[in-house]
Amino acid sequence: MSKPKVILAFSGGLDTSFCVKYLSEERGMEVHSALVDTGGFSPEELKAIEEKAYNLGVASHVTLDVVENYYQDCIRFLVYGNVLKNNTYPLSVSAERVFQATAVAKYAQEIGAKAIAHGSTGAGNDQVRFDVVFRIMAPECEVITPIRDLQLSREAEIDFLKSKGVVQEWHKAAYSINKGLWGTSVGGKETLTSSGYLPEDAWPTHLTKSEPSAISLEFEAGQLVGINGKKSANSVAAIRELTELAGAYAIGRDIHVGDTIIGIKGRVGFEAPAPLIIIKAHHTLEKHILTKHQLYWKQNIGDMYGTLLHEGQFLDPVMRNFENFLENTQSNVTGKVFVQLSPYQFHVTGIESPFDLMSSKFGAYGEMNKAWSGDDVRGFSKIVSNQTMIHNLVNSGK
Amino acid sequence: MSKPKVILAFSGGLDTSFCVKYLSEERGMEVHSALVDTGGFSPEELKAIEEKAYNLGVASHVTLDVVENYYQDCIRFLVYGNVLKNNTYPLSVSAERVFQATAVAKYAQEIGAKAIAHGSTGAGNDQVRFDVVFRIMAPECEVITPIRDLQLSREAEIDFLKSKGVVQEWHKAAYSINKGLWGTSVGGKETLTSSGYLPEDAWPTHLTKSEPSAISLEFEAGQLVGINGKKSANSVAAIRELTELAGAYAIGRDIHVGDTIIGIKGRVGFEAPAPLIIIKAHHTLEKHILTKHQLYWKQNIGDMYGTLLHEGQFLDPVMRNFENFLENTQSNVTGKVFVQLSPYQFHVTGIESPFDLMSSKFGAYGEMNKAWSGDDVRGFSKIVSNQTMIHNLVNSGK
Amino acid sequence: MSKPKVILAFSGGLDTSFCVKYLSEERGMEVHSALVDTGGFSPEELKAIEEKAYNLGVASHVTLDVVENYYQDCIRFLVYGNVLKNNTYPLSVSAERVFQATAVAKYAQEIGAKAIAHGSTGAGNDQVRFDVVFRIMAPECEVITPIRDLQLSREAEIDFLKSKGVVQEWHKAAYSINKGLWGTSVGGKETLTSSGYLPEDAWPTHLTKSEPSAISLEFEAGQLVGINGKKSANSVAAIRELTELAGAYAIGRDIHVGDTIIGIKGRVGFEAPAPLIIIKAHHTLEKHILTKHQLYWKQNIGDMYGTLLHEGQFLDPVMRNFENFLENTQSNVTGKVFVQLSPYQFHVTGIESPFDLMSSKFGAYGEMNKAWSGDDVRGFSKIVSNQTMIHNLVNSGK
Amino acid sequence: MSKPKVILAFSGGLDTSFCVKYLSEERGMEVHSALVDTGGFSPEELKAIEEKAYNLGVASHVTLDVVENYYQDCIRFLVYGNVLKNNTYPLSVSAERVFQATAVAKYAQEIGAKAIAHGSTGAGNDQVRFDVVFRIMAPECEVITPIRDLQLSREAEIDFLKSKGVVQEWHKAAYSINKGLWGTSVGGKETLTSSGYLPEDAWPTHLTKSEPSAISLEFEAGQLVGINGKKSANSVAAIRELTELAGAYAIGRDIHVGDTIIGIKGRVGFEAPAPLIIIKAHHTLEKHILTKHQLYWKQNIGDMYGTLLHEGQFLDPVMRNFENFLENTQSNVTGKVFVQLSPYQFHVTGIESPFDLMSSKFGAYGEMNKAWSGDDVRGFSKIVSNQTMIHNLVNSGK
Repeated sequence: MSKPKVILAFSGGLDTSFCVKYLSEERGMEVHSALVDTGGFSPEELKAIEEKAYNLGVASHVTLDVVENYYQDCIRFLVYGNVLKNNTYPLSVSAERVFQATAVAKYAQEIGAKAIAHGSTGAGNDQVRFDVVFRIMAPECEVITPIRDLQLSREAEIDFLKSKGVVQEWHKAAYSINKGLWGTSVGGKETLTSSGYLPEDAWPTHLTKSEPSAISLEFEAGQLVGINGKKSANSVAAIRELTELAGAYAIGRDIHVGDTIIGIKGRVGFEAPAPLIIIKAHHTLEKHILTKHQLYWKQNIGDMYGTLLHEGQFLDPVMRNFENFLENTQSNVTGKVFVQLSPYQFHVTGIESPFDLMSSKFGAYGEMNKAWSGDDVRGFSKIVSNQTMIHNLVNSGK
Repeated sequence: MSKPKVILAFSGGLDTSFCVKYLSEERGMEVHSALVDTGGFSPEELKAIEEKAYNLGVASHVTLDVVENYYQDCIRFLVYGNVLKNNTYPLSVSAERVFQATAVAKYAQEIGAKAIAHGSTGAGNDQVRFDVVFRIMAPECEVITPIRDLQLSREAEIDFLKSKGVVQEWHKAAYSINKGLWGTSVGGKETLTSSGYLPEDAWPTHLTKSEPSAISLEFEAGQLVGINGKKSANSVAAIRELTELAGAYAIGRDIHVGDTIIGIKGRVGFEAPAPLIIIKAHHTLEKHILTKHQLYWKQNIGDMYGTLLHEGQFLDPVMRNFENFLENTQSNVTGKVFVQLSPYQFHVTGIESPFDLMSSKFGAYGEMNKAWSGDDVRGFSKIVSNQTMIHNLVNSGK
Repeated sequence: MSKPKVILAFSGGLDTSFCVKYLSEERGMEVHSALVDTGGFSPEELKAIEEKAYNLGVASHVTLDVVENYYQDCIRFLVYGNVLKNNTYPLSVSAERVFQATAVAKYAQEIGAKAIAHGSTGAGNDQVRFDVVFRIMAPECEVITPIRDLQLSREAEIDFLKSKGVVQEWHKAAYSINKGLWGTSVGGKETLTSSGYLPEDAWPTHLTKSEPSAISLEFEAGQLVGINGKKSANSVAAIRELTELAGAYAIGRDIHVGDTIIGIKGRVGFEAPAPLIIIKAHHTLEKHILTKHQLYWKQNIGDMYGTLLHEGQFLDPVMRNFENFLENTQSNVTGKVFVQLSPYQFHVTGIESPFDLMSSKFGAYGEMNKAWSGDDVRGFSKIVSNQTMIHNLVNSGK
Repeated sequence: MSKPKVILAFSGGLDTSFCVKYLSEERGMEVHSALVDTGGFSPEELKAIEEKAYNLGVASHVTLDVVENYYQDCIRFLVYGNVLKNNTYPLSVSAERVFQATAVAKYAQEIGAKAIAHGSTGAGNDQVRFDVVFRIMAPECEVITPIRDLQLSREAEIDFLKSKGVVQEWHKAAYSINKGLWGTSVGGKETLTSSGYLPEDAWPTHLTKSEPSAISLEFEAGQLVGINGKKSANSVAAIRELTELAGAYAIGRDIHVGDTIIGIKGRVGFEAPAPLIIIKAHHTLEKHILTKHQLYWKQNIGDMYGTLLHEGQFLDPVMRNFENFLENTQSNVTGKVFVQLSPYQFHVTGIESPFDLMSSKFGAYGEMNKAWSGDDVRGFSKIVSNQTMIHNLVNSGK
């Protein structure tokens, strides 16, 4: 009788290495490992992880490259919606998890696996994101979470691996880093408290340029398509170029404090130069182009899109409705945005767009207007104050 | 027969100087000038304006100090609500106008004036804010707006004043500056375009300190009450101290692009070190203390509070309901916030509060939890994915 | 020199008859009258109005039939959004006005008119709706409103018409009735007070059937396409059939109290059997088919769509974004809804749909479930209570 | 050693009778039963339940009367917020459960119980509401749910009881009825399907009066305080009187379809004459008294209050903030509402209030206004159309 196939979402770390041996040797399963690339790995890293997998004895290993898909199906909507969780965090990790889970679930169905395993612990958001996507997309698969279920210490995991002949240095990094196209998260002992700030060393990217520079970002229908007057190959490439440019100034560091899906508060450092610049630039462009009602409703919808994404509800059909709405607002969001980069900070200095409503052809703010008179505004003021005026009179008994 | 009394909101500039002479000599009115101080004037400036008024021949002049009132009735709610219009602008000027208009309307009723005059042009937001407040609070008073109605050029105004014996240098400042407790706005030729940025000279406050420093802000029930471990006399004093401290780093500059009340887009520079730091610090404290539902609804209510304030609707009774809601959420928003100041920027580095929900007594984010198990989360994940799972099965025809 | 052309939105009543003579004889204009049909006129009525126009001496008269357009561009979104202003009123008249104004503005541009006239008084919503649409769609046209500007009494209008040779009985109906595809409004002396109710006579449709009957409504992608198992020619025809069927029971009467655009409260009676039944039926179908997030956000968006439509803001681009969102939610809203009709009332009794999420294949409400266990729910309950539990412990000092 | 104390939420039915015997005899606990009265029991019923409890051998039984508390802490906010879940259901049962659980949790702490038991199955909303409240209010208590955990059939429960000497007829009612102050729910085989409607027999209240009658409801600060000109002892009494009056007409029946907390759709019949009339009457009164901004935000807040209440989140502190907001809007919601009752239906016919903003002292809808002119409205229309006009011009390239 053949062994049951299990897909393991594999990262090459201690936890998922433990899972390979545990699933194959203790549970008697045929382990197929998969690494999903959302933009955070170099080719060398991908190769090293693959080797680790085979050394641990997986039946097969695959790298699923979902970067373009991740951009098309999620990141661009985060830009359209100017999504910053709690006005701070571009949801760098939250978004990735869903795409990793989705890719794994599809792959499981392709190769006919009966089970999916992930290495999440019982303490964070990721376990829920994986569980939820797997249950929805592959409800026929069992979901196995050895680390969460067995609650072993690092030492116990290392001992188990040793007992299976896997002898290696498992050094614990002082900071846990998660890198992807839309930003890098950094957690460490400081973020486990409410007041610690990450030391300079902990940040993956460091200041290498101190002379300020001015750049321009080109948007078409809401998407970043070029930098400094040069079209990028595509938006993914443009994000990478901007990460490079702004990373040299160590721009985009902050700490996010937020509500985890499981109800506790969590804190995490991140560096996300491209997301923070793109969102502020895009938002500024929109403030010139969209009407006030569009701006108001986009913000509400964008916030909720981010919240449900964060909470692992990406597959709820309402998310497709939100994406549709957001995309529908972007047809005119085209133009250039000028940005000043300097060490650790940036400023949006202005925009240029054929769709700019701040057109001097019509009345300019602070200048006398051409299309209406002072009397028109006086009439406007009267009518807009009617209800409160009546309210006051009624209530004063006059 | 006695002349009709008119209250003139007087600033000492060309436009309101013109109004004094125009109202008294052309309209035959008894002009009583009033300057409303919302925190932007030194005693010397107030004295100089008073002298100007009497030199122009007003029947009386009064300085109405509303700073404390402005804080109690508006600014503290802007803090509770973390109000930044379009995620950028602390509404420095918008809020002031309402309090200036309110003070003038009350004063008009006290001295039995039959008319109120203001020097607004027909091009901006302020005319509406003044019109609306006067109509609601003093519906029996005529509202006179000579500058809007007559549409005179600067030269014509100067000529008129000369013809009335007022000979003086009326130099036009390159940048129009409006200063108050909650920030300073700066407009000039760059802000009339979509891409110009204000030059260094244009900003009223300049960098005078370059060595970074760490400060702590103490909040009680949502209000800033002390800095660096020292209680301030009151929150107004604390805001002034922080303005001093952070102004030395030239922190808090930005450009706001927004929708005016009259439907056109407008752009204005501002420097607001204290508001920006207080709001980010306060918001961070709240993220540790409030539940996710509180955070979500506070943001919605706070945004709308800011929008209606901006649009001159401060007197609508819904604003009292919003204030009530916001205040009601603040009972626990007490603690210290740690902030790093450096040239042109600041970072919130952490908080300390007895009401911090990120308590290590309960499960910590990223660590194994004490109050629930991995199985509980597995159950949670199942139940929260139920609806989308069923939706997918129903729609796939399985 | 040729006379300037003016388009007059003409209804055949006293006010617009006055306008014909006033514009042609006092203002020297070439008057082209237009009647826009939004579904409330019989062919005989349309013919009679045309005759009146020519008898008054218009240069040309045209009937603009916009019923299908009105359905496609507005009514179907009111159904998708279950739009009832203040939970009561299907916006029967508000929506029509925009389509009447739009048709007139387009026609003005087609025939090169330099002015548009409408017969609104200065007291209601309609003046604003007409003004706003004309200004946006035909900003080059002057908008003339003789009735609002001249403020003549009925008698003065009649005298003026007599003086121009128009002698006719202008009887003032006790109730002003406005009929269209999406309902009929009824105003009279009772609705000018806060407590009067319309007498039986005032309602245009009366009870003619007392035996209750059960009907079924068939929806496809959110639109009513058939009744009692028979496909209608199109949705406009289906609405007319349902109006017939339910009108016999005098279903759909109510009084709406609401905020006018100009800030005062207004009250109006209406009868709208088809809209009320369609919306309740459609909403019930959605409750079975859509997820809770979809239902929640649809309601918010639908409410705002109705509010902006009511306030004459139909042309703001955000309305296109809302329509897009609403349509995007409807792909599955397909099925039958069962409705019981009886005198003056109706009940939705159930639905049938292939997309019904209340599928007995999965856990049924109140029955033991197949896809999860009691333990899963226990885990769910634990996790969803985490934050409030921690909040309580932190605040109790435990 | 003494037995551990457990509080059992006891109803006298088969499930909780089973729990008494199971907890005492199989688990060796000292069972204290508690019945929480939320307004649905007669004194005779309460007495009978108490007898049953003692016959089953409980150590003690107590009736916790929370009706007044339930009104003060919840129902009045449902009125202030006009809360109808999905525009239909007054949340009759959802609200009760929380108050039952709260009373039980408090009682558990009073008598020092170490455990709380409830008889919920694993299929509905109630299990979550009980679990959540117990965990938050009494985190130190174990929560025991024998019916959910053991998954016994009715027959197995009856057999177990027989084996313990409890021999009695346990007839299964065709319809499960839950009665409380704020309405009665009715579930049966029809509500388990999507299209079945409850037969006449299934409704607890039947038509006993056919002659229509007109009543008036008196509200003070948002609360019903009297009927037909006579003050009631308190609002609870007024609700009971109205239930009596309107019940005679069999008013207030409907079927609610909604999302359960656990993600499946559920359907339940209900009769709630008083809640439906009070909410529609109260809402109509508000439409006359509150400003449009108040009405809009109250509806949003009210809906969310209902949703979180339904989902068992009553103890989240945001609910206190919502209550505060809602109460703050009610100061003027005082006046009479006129209602017509007839068989199976009612109509609100009008209101009378000193705070009515539809005052004829100011401009009346449809009549020429006194406080502003047609020119003022023309100016208003111009200004409110500015942004869309500019948008259209910019986009048409004019």
